Order: sequence, then structure tokens, then C-alpha cells
Amino acid sequence: MPRVIILAMILVEKNLVHKAKTKIILFVIDGLGGIPRPEDGKTEMEAAQTPNLDALAKKSVLGLINPVAPGVSPGSGPGHLSIFGYDPLQNDVGRGVLEALGVGMKLMESDVAARGNFATLDADGLIVDRRAGRPKDQDAAKVVELLKKNIKEIEGVQVLLQHVKGHRFVVVFRGEDLSGRVLETDPQQDGVPPLFPVPEKREAEHTARIIWQFIQKAHYTLLNEKKMNCVLLRGFSKLPYLQPFSDRYKMDGVGIAVYPMYKGVARVIGLNILGEPRSFEEEVKILEDNWAEHEFFFIHYKDTDEAGEDGDFDRKVAKLEEADSFVRRLLALKPDVIAITGDHSTPAMMAKHSWHPVPFMISGPFAGPDDCTAFTERQAKHGYYGRIRATDLMSLILANAGRAKKFGA
Amino acid sequence: MPRVIILAMILVEKNLVHKAKTKIILFVIDGLGGIPRPEDGKTEMEAAQTPNLDALAKKSVLGLINPVAPGVSPGSGPGHLSIFGYDPLQNDVGRGVLEALGVGMKLMESDVAARGNFATLDADGLIVDRRAGRPKDQDAAKVVELLKKNIKEIEGVQVLLQHVKGHRFVVVFRGEDLSGRVLETDPQQDGVPPLFPVPEKREAEHTARIIWQFIQKAHYTLLNEKKMNCVLLRGFSKLPYLQPFSDRYKMDGVGIAVYPMYKGVARVIGLNILGEPRSFEEEVKILEDNWAEHEFFFIHYKDTDEAGEDGDFDRKVAKLEEADSFVRRLLALKPDVIAITGDHSTPAMMAKHSWHPVPFMISGPFAGPDDCTAFTERQAKHGYYGRIRATDLMSLILANAGRAKKFGA
Repeated sequence: MPRVIILAMILVEKNLVHKAKTKIILFVIDGLGGIPRPEDGKTEMEAAQTPNLDALAKKSVLGLINPVAPGVSPGSGPGHLSIFGYDPLQNDVGRGVLEALGVGMKLMESDVAARGNFATLDADGLIVDRRAGRPKDQDAAKVVELLKKNIKEIEGVQVLLQHVKGHRFVVVFRGEDLSGRVLETDPQQDGVPPLFPVPEKREAEHTARIIWQFIQKAHYTLLNEKKMNCVLLRGFSKLPYLQPFSDRYKMDGVGIAVYPMYKGVARVIGLNILGEPRSFEEEVKILEDNWAEHEFFFIHYKDTDEAGEDGDFDRKVAKLEEADSFVRRLLALKPDVIAITGDHSTPAMMAKHSWHPVPFMISGPFAGPDDCTAFTERQAKHGYYGRIRATDLMSLILANAGRAKKFGA
Repeated sequence: MPRVIILAMILVEKNLVHKAKTKIILFVIDGLGGIPRPEDGKTEMEAAQTPNLDALAKKSVLGLINPVAPGVSPGSGPGHLSIFGYDPLQNDVGRGVLEALGVGMKLMESDVAARGNFATLDADGLIVDRRAGRPKDQDAAKVVELLKKNIKEIEGVQVLLQHVKGHRFVVVFRGEDLSGRVLETDPQQDGVPPLFPVPEKREAEHTARIIWQFIQKAHYTLLNEKKMNCVLLRGFSKLPYLQPFSDRYKMDGVGIAVYPMYKGVARVIGLNILGEPRSFEEEVKILEDNWAEHEFFFIHYKDTDEAGEDGDFDRKVAKLEEADSFVRRLLALKPDVIAITGDHSTPAMMAKHSWHPVPFMISGPFAGPDDCTAFTERQAKHGYYGRIRATDLMSLILANAGRAKKFGA
């Protein structure tokens, strides 16, 4: 794989980032933005009682980010890469890689990772349940161990397996000349057989054959399983080379998140992951405990997105209020700069990620003039920083933190 | 000519557009935006009583488009290509091609088309009227027939002629190795002789000679005409290859317009043209009659631009009010998404196309939060969709219509 360093930011391209002693919190409220509910025309952010966010908004400068481009609804990977200042259009990070990194597997440059699901096949070889009846963690973990024991290598390619959660696992193929350009085997519907791992490019034929053999061996190994008798694989991908965060921004950055996906995207850019939190409360505790040790803290709040994806307006409101309740603890650490935003909008009215611009605010001693009175979509559209590409957010954060030089004489 | 497919949109580049059952109206009010008149500081849009557009604005999300780039005043071709999502900077569509397609001529890839005007020369060979006294359609059509009869071919290059309207006609040169890189022969002023069709590139020398012979033969044929005794040619151009609308956006799109130019630009991108309307009223009738049959409807309102170009503020106001009066009939069709915008601004105060950003609004169930109360320039600048490149408008329309996939995992 060619190692290409992609530079989306002027500050980085022109070598204007420098070290400083300032400390930064980037608080990502997943799926932050929303659209109005018909009853009263309020968005989730407007309906929520968020006194701490609103008080901060009064002292901050607001704006809106387009995570990728107008009209584009990003996944979590591209959404996060953008706000970290890496162009997601030029850095396609696969699901397999994100999951593998998320569960803490160390990937090598030549590895191909995939997200796996256990599924149930009937006697005719047709899928009857793409999630194998949603097995318990301990049961699925046992089946992963069984696969591990029986499939260690295929034609000299090492097979590494790790259980994630429920029916989900990760498989990593480690060998030479492997390619990530293989199509998924999950047909995304029941009543049909699994798909063949089709190579998208001639260079991927060898990899596809290895994957096919893995699937056959796995199915043979699982013959006696009642429900988890099939593996579906998707998101075949290799580690992209992204300039490490510490090189790029000349500071020591860490990430704190509950879910593997977000740990994964943080690890892709070289952020170290702190702890094993099981709740946002625990995330904040980890942040507090490690405050003295690092310079940049990415902290991720998931529940707003989940409520939005479930189409639960009231729960998203409640989760925004929960996020709000932690703002004082974040501010108590006295960060030089705190930036709050989302990786994309997840309007409860749509029950999915959307293309709507996402509010952000930056607070710091030099943030600038503004007159926004609350942290909402409609306030943010008048924010002094305006509407920017999400990849420019890190530039504003660095500038606010006194970590950017003047450009030109 | 190399066939290059130009992709200006992320949704298209990343293959994120998919089919859906939604129906879309794109209502283009030509030359929509304006600038304030000194008397009361109101623009045409602000002076006009447009209750229907304003009511729709309250339920829509607004924004501003830059048709090409800040400070660039686009012609109708680039203006329309932009809002259709085709980058006009990379797709130079000549006037000749637009006129030829507009009158329904079928162009071949190797053809060179030009817009022709009949003009009047005096005894010294100087132009005394660039529009030949604005002849009646039937008179000019007869002269076109005369040319057709006398000039069928030049050095193996076929000459195809068609009358358009008044003094205007189209000529198409059909043969091998022709080039569109020839300069116009219309000096754009009276009292001087017609210009020589200068080849801009060495590759266009052969074409320029053919054109020059055509002009000589035409003038010889027209020796006995009192007024239409000269032809002025401009907009020499070849058919560009643009990815067809139906491939690009995976929907069945049609265009409805009175003027050939707008039919032409719609045909360039592969939109089928419905009917032969002579007024906007007839356009709307055609839209209604064909509503069940298609998915995307481009409908074009011309008179606002014409009034703006004539520098007639009050008439532009009246024409905006006329356009407004049809909005209810458009909404009565219950489109899933309706987008209203202009291809450029035509401020009556300037009496020509201008560079000013053009308001747009998108209405649909998921448009998003906004608080604009009228469809005006000053309201649109606060719109939630912000100011975007015109080429991103189609992305927003597709996203709103549920015709775009999520980008990335």
C-alpha cells in the first residue's frame, strides 16, 4: 500500500502548528444536530434544558460545520476524521479496521481486517437470522475461541480472531500481498445464501480466495452449532496511513470513549485510548484522573446518536440534558480551550445520520465576539465563526489554543 | 473530442445516489436575485408581494448559491448547469449548441453549431442594423429556406440551417475534423464590417475556412434582400459530453421551458423536454398533465430575467408576483421536495446578469430547522443551509428526497 500523507489543513500544509502549554478538550456529542418536531417546531437541542451548554455558548463563539459536503450524510468514521482535521474523502477508513482497532487489536500495514457477524443458516444454506438470535457475549466468545483453535492459518496467511460484542467479531488476515478490495459476504437480507467474497480488483483475487477458504473452514467448524453456524464478513480494509496526531498537531492527544468504533477512529489517527469506561460518567472520571498528563483530550458521548437513530426524540432530549450535566466537570478542569460539536446530525425525526450542518462552539480567552445565547442549530447559524468545512475545525481549535504561527511576513 | 465525464459532486463521485419513489420539482425563476433600488432600499424580491413564496419560505430551509464563484456573473448556460450539479468551469457549453438543441436539432459529436443573426449591411459593407430591423418570423424563415436551398455543402461539410425566432437562426456544420475554437463574426456594434471567423487554435483553421465560405455564399445568396443581407455568427461550439442526468442521479428527469436556450441546456444533460409551451401558464399545465409520469421536473420561468435585463424594476417585481401566483399549483401536486432558486441574479438596477449570490429554498419533510419568514435575499443569507456552491444544490435536493446513501461506516 502506498503511504500517502493527506493534508487537508492550511495550518498543517504550511507548517504553522507549534507547541504550546495549553490544554484542549474536544467534546463530541455524537449525532448532535436535529430537525424540528412538528408539535412545536423545536429541535432536540431547542427542546432540551441545557443550562450549562447555554451558559458556555454565551461566552463562546459558535458556528456550523458541514462534516463532508452539503447534502452528504456521513458515517461515524468520516464524521470523526473530519473534526480531527483529516479529509475523509481522501482517507477511506474501513469498518473492519475501525472495529479491529476499537477492540484493541494491533494492526500491521499489510493486514486486512473485517467485521464479522455470526448468522444462522437453515438446512438449505439460506440465512434465516443475520444476527444468529443475538447470542450472549459469553456464548459468542466461546464460538470465537472454537474458530481460533481450528483456523490459525490459510496458505501461509495468519488468521486472527477477536470477539467484540453479541454476534459481532473481528477477523484479521495477516500475510503478504493482501488487498482490502473484496466485497462483503453479507447479503443484508434473510432468505438468501451468503455472498461470495468477490474481488473488486484483480490484485484482490488472492485475498478473496483466502477469505473464501476461511469461510468454508468456519462453516465446517460450526456444523454442530444450532444458531451460530455461519459467518458473514464485511468492511474488508487495510490500515490507512494517516499522519499521526502528535506529529501533525505537535501535541500529546488522547481519546476517551466507550464504544469500539470511536476508539478505533481515534487510534487510526494515533490517539492513545485511556481506560475502559463503560459509561460517560466513567469517561469523565478518566479525563479528570489523567488531566495532568496530556494536552489534548477527545471525549465522546454516544447516547444522543443512539436515541436519534432509534427515532426517540424525547430520549435524545434527555441524553442532551445528561451530556449538559457533565459540562461543569469539564470546565472545572480549566481547559484553555474547549470545543463542543458533533460528528454529524442524527435527527430523531429521521432516525438516522443526516446531512444537516452541525453546531459547534469554541470557548477560550480569545474566542472572539459573538452574541449567541444558547447552543442550538438556529443560534449556531449566526455564529461568528460561520459555517466551515468540518476539516477546518481543528485549525480554529489550534489557533484558539495559541498553537498556530502567523502565515507569511 | 475526448469524452470526459466530469463529476463535481461528492454524492456522485462516491456513488451514493440511489433510486427512490420521491418526486421533485426544481423551479428556476430566471435572474431571481436583485439589488436595492435607491428610493426605499428594497430589492425586487422585497418589493414584490409574494405571499405564496413567503409562506413556503416559513416551512423551508433557505440559503444562497454562488452560481460559479464569488464575483463571477454567469450566463444562462453555466448558471443552469451549476444548479443541475454539473461544474460549468469544466463543462463549457457553447451558445450554438444550446440554441441548436433548444430548437430540437439532433447534434452529432463532430458537429459545430453556431447561433446566427440576420443583419443589415449598407453599400459599403458596414453593419447598419445587427438585428436586420427585427424581421417577422415568417419573413426570416423564408430567408433561412433560401439559404438552405443554395448552401447544402462546403468542401464535403454539410450545412444544416434552422430558423429560431425573429432575426435568429442556427447553423450546424457537419463533417470531419471540425473545431469549435473559432471566434465570433459579430462585432457587437454597428458602423463596422462583420469580423472574420478567426481560428483560435491551429486545429480550427479548416473549420474557419469552411465558415468563411459559408458567410460569403450566404451574402451572395442574400444580395437581393433589403434588410436580411448579412449573417453574423457566434457561439461556435461542439456538443460536450456530460454524464446523462438519469445515469447521474438515478431518476427520470424532464424539463419544461418556453425558450430554446433553456430547453437546450436541459437537453445537454439529457433531460427530456415536455411539450411546446408558449407561456408559463402552459408550462404549469404541462407539468400537471405529466406529473404521474416522471420523478424530477425542471420548470423554468423566464420573464423575471427579461425584465431585469431591460432594467425595468417594476416589471421584474410584477413578474415575481406572477411567478408567485403559480406556487400553489406546484404545491398542489404534493411534490416530496420542491426547490426554488435562480440561475443567477439579474438586478434591474444593473440591467444585466450579475455576480450576486442567489437565494434558494428547499421544502420537504426533513429540510431542517430554520426561521426565515420570507423568500428574499436578506432572509436567505440567514438560511440554515448557508451559502453553498450552486453545484452542491442538487446534493441537498437529493438528500432531502431520500435519494442519497450514508458516506462511510
